[in-house]
Amino acid sequence: MTVLVFLDPAFPSGRVADASVPQLLATDLGATRGDGVFESMLAVDGKPRKVSMHLDRMAASAAALELAFPAPGQWEPAISTALAEFGRVHGEPQAVVKLILTRGPEGADQPTAWVQASPVPASAARQREAGLDVLLLDRGYDSTVAEHAPWLLLGSKTLSYAVNMAAIRYAREHGADDVIFTSSDGKVLEGPTSTVVLATVQNGTKTLLTPELESGILPGTTQGALFQAAENAGWQLGYGPLEPTHLHQADGVWLVSSIRLLAPVKSINAEPIAVSPALTAELAALVETVL
Amino acid sequence: MTVLVFLDPAFPSGRVADASVPQLLATDLGATRGDGVFESMLAVDGKPRKVSMHLDRMAASAAALELAFPAPGQWEPAISTALAEFGRVHGEPQAVVKLILTRGPEGADQPTAWVQASPVPASAARQREAGLDVLLLDRGYDSTVAEHAPWLLLGSKTLSYAVNMAAIRYAREHGADDVIFTSSDGKVLEGPTSTVVLATVQNGTKTLLTPELESGILPGTTQGALFQAAENAGWQLGYGPLEPTHLHQADGVWLVSSIRLLAPVKSINAEPIAVSPALTAELAALVETVL
Repeated sequence: MTVLVFLDPAFPSGRVADASVPQLLATDLGATRGDGVFESMLAVDGKPRKVSMHLDRMAASAAALELAFPAPGQWEPAISTALAEFGRVHGEPQAVVKLILTRGPEGADQPTAWVQASPVPASAARQREAGLDVLLLDRGYDSTVAEHAPWLLLGSKTLSYAVNMAAIRYAREHGADDVIFTSSDGKVLEGPTSTVVLATVQNGTKTLLTPELESGILPGTTQGALFQAAENAGWQLGYGPLEPTHLHQADGVWLVSSIRLLAPVKSINAEPIAVSPALTAELAALVETVL
Repeated sequence: MTVLVFLDPAFPSGRVADASVPQLLATDLGATRGDGVFESMLAVDGKPRKVSMHLDRMAASAAALELAFPAPGQWEPAISTALAEFGRVHGEPQAVVKLILTRGPEGADQPTAWVQASPVPASAARQREAGLDVLLLDRGYDSTVAEHAPWLLLGSKTLSYAVNMAAIRYAREHGADDVIFTSSDGKVLEGPTSTVVLATVQNGTKTLLTPELESGILPGTTQGALFQAAENAGWQLGYGPLEPTHLHQADGVWLVSSIRLLAPVKSINAEPIAVSPALTAELAALVETVL
């Protein structure tokens, strides 16, 4: 099902491996400490989208963890190999491409790096179409802590995602689909696997807003691409701080990410918010132009 | 070097595996999401110490992550097998025994569980003898958040340890050996891999203190055993809230954990604190009586 290609100096195009048999040492610090970084991107017709944005962000995450980051010239051929193999096996036009880099086996001082290509989960299109019921959950952090506490790795996409996964489970058990994290000082942060974007339309001026990066959130690659396209199309852009009232007052709220793309939020804490199919269509079209 | 034994229904005593070759699927959610729990314990002469305390705590961590937890009757034979194999291979009296449980391969709904036995790192005895220079680092959380935000998994020992590892790296790069985390409201929490214990001696009354569990810290198995032994030996016991001033005013501060045991703190943020070899010896002897 999943195609696996390891970065391996002996294989310039990456070493294809069988995902159905063990490929990782049990002592890999990725598995025992969540000590590593990752990216997920969408590939369409064998081409990964926003690959340089993802590689740049992954390099920044690796730097925050003091992990040596393989050069793009090592990742890119491995991604191509994975997508060629995925096309051969699956024949589907779309794939999820994951890049993973761990600190490697304990004591070895040799990172483990690989590319996975797998089918896009059916839930992505379903949630994009149906929209999302979202819970606001406290992320526990103050929105100012990231700047003076680099050891918290805020804004880095690490393999330590247990809290993100627990938050989504919590939402599902409480009748929702997804989560928007808030800071302990009441600011809107991000989703566990997405960026929050909202739109306002006033007197013919359309504005896209997203929380500011200084609050310790991950810089969204899809949000970044969308904002660029929107600006080119005449939208105003704005960056937080945002509070939950802004979500309730907006003309539309979306969770934006590389695989699910633009998923409209239809309720927050079980309270319906404004949903605009027209804005969703317009923004989705903008996403398509840049990707 | 490392002995590996998987929990496997087909092998009632555990399935011994070669740690030098891959044993985990690359899609295991332990490796890709830090989604799992673990415990580390010391074994002496083939016997794991405090095994039921560790299994109880791991069961609680697994419950917080909604992971099915294998029964002690599955872990214990696997631990015995690992230690027998470790003794055969290494002939050392002491071993680190790690228990690891992940959510298993993506989409499989089948947790992965294994036992590792490996040599005790030389740094454990060295730090126990030499003492620790410690930095206070902000953990970013308020000491009251754990109680109303179960999705933060505070007090659970998850595989998502990237922040703990980053904090220790940060300390080492700033001339220290280890870290004591503080809450955003200024309370003493815990070390990245240890519990904070401090002692006061006033008018012949000896008191052991540790931060209160409600602040979202992990319940320390070694701290728990030490407190029980100390109480039996006539010590008074106390539980936080503690603030950094308490550390500076104490007659001794220790970081307590299962492998390194009782390591005295000799400075905090480069400021020397009281160190009492007599109290360290007395408490170390108490640790030995219960383990």
